[in-house]
Amino acid sequence: MTVHPPQRGFPPDEYRARVERAQAMMASRGLRGLLLLTEPEVRYFTGFLTQFWQSPTRPWFVVVPLCGEPVAVIPAIGNEAMARTWIRDIRTWPAPTPDDEGLTLLAETIGETLKPGPVGLPMGPETSLRMPLMDFRRLEDMLTEWPIVDDGGIVRALRVIKSEAEIAKVRFVCRQVSGVFESLPERLHMGMSDIEAFRTFKIACLEAGVDDVSYLVGAAGEGGYGDIISPPAGRALQDGDVLIFDTGCVFDGYFCDFDRNYAIGTTDERAMRAHETVWAATEAGLAVARPGAMARDVWRAMQDVLVAGGALGNDVGRMGHGLGMQLTEWPSNMESDHTVLAENMILTLEPGMTFAPGRVMVHEENIVIRDGAPELLSRRAPSSMPMIS
Amino acid sequence: MTVHPPQRGFPPDEYRARVERAQAMMASRGLRGLLLLTEPEVRYFTGFLTQFWQSPTRPWFVVVPLCGEPVAVIPAIGNEAMARTWIRDIRTWPAPTPDDEGLTLLAETIGETLKPGPVGLPMGPETSLRMPLMDFRRLEDMLTEWPIVDDGGIVRALRVIKSEAEIAKVRFVCRQVSGVFESLPERLHMGMSDIEAFRTFKIACLEAGVDDVSYLVGAAGEGGYGDIISPPAGRALQDGDVLIFDTGCVFDGYFCDFDRNYAIGTTDERAMRAHETVWAATEAGLAVARPGAMARDVWRAMQDVLVAGGALGNDVGRMGHGLGMQLTEWPSNMESDHTVLAENMILTLEPGMTFAPGRVMVHEENIVIRDGAPELLSRRAPSSMPMIS
Repeated sequence: MTVHPPQRGFPPDEYRARVERAQAMMASRGLRGLLLLTEPEVRYFTGFLTQFWQSPTRPWFVVVPLCGEPVAVIPAIGNEAMARTWIRDIRTWPAPTPDDEGLTLLAETIGETLKPGPVGLPMGPETSLRMPLMDFRRLEDMLTEWPIVDDGGIVRALRVIKSEAEIAKVRFVCRQVSGVFESLPERLHMGMSDIEAFRTFKIACLEAGVDDVSYLVGAAGEGGYGDIISPPAGRALQDGDVLIFDTGCVFDGYFCDFDRNYAIGTTDERAMRAHETVWAATEAGLAVARPGAMARDVWRAMQDVLVAGGALGNDVGRMGHGLGMQLTEWPSNMESDHTVLAENMILTLEPGMTFAPGRVMVHEENIVIRDGAPELLSRRAPSSMPMIS
Repeated sequence: MTVHPPQRGFPPDEYRARVERAQAMMASRGLRGLLLLTEPEVRYFTGFLTQFWQSPTRPWFVVVPLCGEPVAVIPAIGNEAMARTWIRDIRTWPAPTPDDEGLTLLAETIGETLKPGPVGLPMGPETSLRMPLMDFRRLEDMLTEWPIVDDGGIVRALRVIKSEAEIAKVRFVCRQVSGVFESLPERLHMGMSDIEAFRTFKIACLEAGVDDVSYLVGAAGEGGYGDIISPPAGRALQDGDVLIFDTGCVFDGYFCDFDRNYAIGTTDERAMRAHETVWAATEAGLAVARPGAMARDVWRAMQDVLVAGGALGNDVGRMGHGLGMQLTEWPSNMESDHTVLAENMILTLEPGMTFAPGRVMVHEENIVIRDGAPELLSRRAPSSMPMIS
C-alpha cells in the first residue's frame, strides 16, 4: 500500500513521437492521413481518457495528417476534456444530431487538412467500426477524393511496442493485483457465495490502488471449472471446488490481465496436477519469450508441456496475447501467429488445458519482452494451488 | 443493505417473447432474419452475459430467423457459457482464426437457416459494427443471396420498452446507489484527493450490492466544474468547490445513470442557484413525462425552466435519454426527437446548464414512464446541494 503509483498521463513529447512514427509509416504506405474512431486509438494519439465511450450515442473522430498535428473532431460534450490534452485543433458539433452526426464537419476537416488521396482506417483483425455503418457509407460518399482504406496495420505496429512510461502503469496495476491475489486465502472462505467472493476481490483491488476492476470473470466447480468468461453464478464455494479469478484491472487506462486458481478445502488430485502442468508450461513460455522469437514459438513451448501433461484440448484458442490499453491486444500466442517478439512488447502467457471432460485449468502471467529474460509484471504464482478453507 | 436484490437472469419465456416480437416486425418489413453483433443485442435475445466483450479479438454472431429460434455462431471459448442460456443451436469455431474469423461458419449458418432475402443488421444511429470492416465486406461477398440491410429500427423498438423484470434490476441499482449518494457527506471531506473520493464512492457502491461501477465520472472546481465526462484530476477537494459524481453502476447487466452535486464547505451562491434551477427543471420534466408526450416535450419543459433561470447554454446536447442494458439508450430528450413516450420506457431526466463561463451544473434522475406520473427509480435529490465539510 506504500508503493507510489506512477505519474498519470504522458508528456506531450510522447504523443509527438507516436505521431511522428505514424507519419513515417503513412509516408511509406502512400497514405494522406489516418482516421481513428475507437477509444484506444483516439487515446493513443491524444491522451483523451474518459469512460464516456460507454455511451454509444456519439461518434468521436481524430484525423492524423501526414504532416502536422492531429485534429480532434468531437461532440461538444468532450471539448473541455480534450482541451486539457496536448491537442490544439479541436472542432466540435452539438451532438447528438443524428441527421448529421459529425459527418459534414469531419468531411470538411479532412478536406482542409489532407491532400486528396487515401486515408487509412484500422479495419483489419481485432478492429471494429465505432460509428453507424450507414453513416460510414455516407461519409465515404462525401469523401470522393479521399478513399478510406485499411491502415495497413500502422496503429497496431505502433501500439504493440510500449514505452517505459506505459510499462510502468501496467507494472503498477500488476503488482497491486498480485498482492490482492496473494491475500485471497485470508479474505475468502468455504461457504461464501461466489457473488460475495467477486465483490470482495473488487473492493480489495480498489483499496490496493487500482482505478477500476473493469474485468473480473471466474468460476468455481467441484474438481474444476468449465468456463472462464462468466460472472458469478450465485453458488457457494464448496469443499472440493477449484476457483479461478481472471481479472483486468486498470490504472490510468492501462490493464493487467492475469488469473489465479485456488483449491477450496479438499484438493482434487487431478486439478492439482493440471495446475502444476500449466505452471510448468508458463515456465517453458518464459524460457523462450525473447526478442527474435515468434509468438508461435512461445505457444509451441507451452503446448509441448501441456500435451506431455495430458491436455485434452484448449477452447481458449490461444495461450496469451498482447496487453496494454486494452484487455487483449495483438499478437496471439498461437501456432498461426508469426509475429516476431521485440523488446518492450507486453504479453500475457496463458497456457490452458482441458484436463477432464468439461474441466479446464488456465494459468496466466504478464511479462515484458526484454533484452534477455522477460520481466515479470505479475508476481509469479506458486506452482501449487493455494488453498482456501 | 437488507434489501434483497431481484432475481438474476430472465425466464426463457421472456426471451421467447422478445424473439416473437422481433419476428413479427421482420415479417412486416420483409426481412428473412436479423444478424446481431454487439453485446447488448446478443444479450437481449440470448441472455449471454459476460465481460469478455472487452477483448476485441473475437467477433460474436447471433442470427434471429424469421421463424424458429436464434442461432449463436460464436468462438469456442464462449460455448460453455452460451450453453447455460436458453439457446439450443450453438455453433462454434476455434477463434482466434484471423484468416477466417467465423465468416464461413456464419455464412453457412445463414444459408441453412434463412431463405434467400434481406437480413437486417442494426446500422442506424447509436449503432456500431463490432467486427472488422474488411471481414464484414468479405461476409457480404459470401452472402450474395442474403443482402445485409438496416434492420429498420427493430431492435431499438423492442429494447426501448422494458419488461417489469428489467425495470426491477434498474430499480435495485438506482436504490442502492441513491443510498450511497446520500451517505457521501459522511464519507468524503475537504482536503481529500478527488482520486480518493472516486475510490471511496466505488467501494461504497460495491458494498451496497451493485455488481460493477462501470461508469464514474466527475469533477470538482472552485465555484463550479466545466466538464462532466472525466476521471479524477488528482486534485484535493477545496473549500468553495462544487463536486459532481455521475455514475453508471450495474446490476445483472442493467445500468443506472444519475448524478449528484455537492458543495464543498463554503457554498458558491451562483452554483447554489444553478442547482436549484436544474432541480426545478427536473420537476418540470417529471410533470410532462407521460405516455403520449414526446421526448422533445420533456426537453422543452426543462429547457424553459433553465432559460428562465439564466442558462447560457448546454454542451451536453440533450437533457436525458433512454437507459437499460446500456448507460445511454434512445430516445434523446432534445428538440429534434419526436419519439412518443410509452409505458415502461426507462428514461433519464438530465437538465444541464452553463451558468457562468466554463461552469456547468448538471442534474439527473432515472424514471419509468407509467400510466400517469412516472415512477422515480433514483431517490429524488434535495433541491439544495448537500454540503461536504
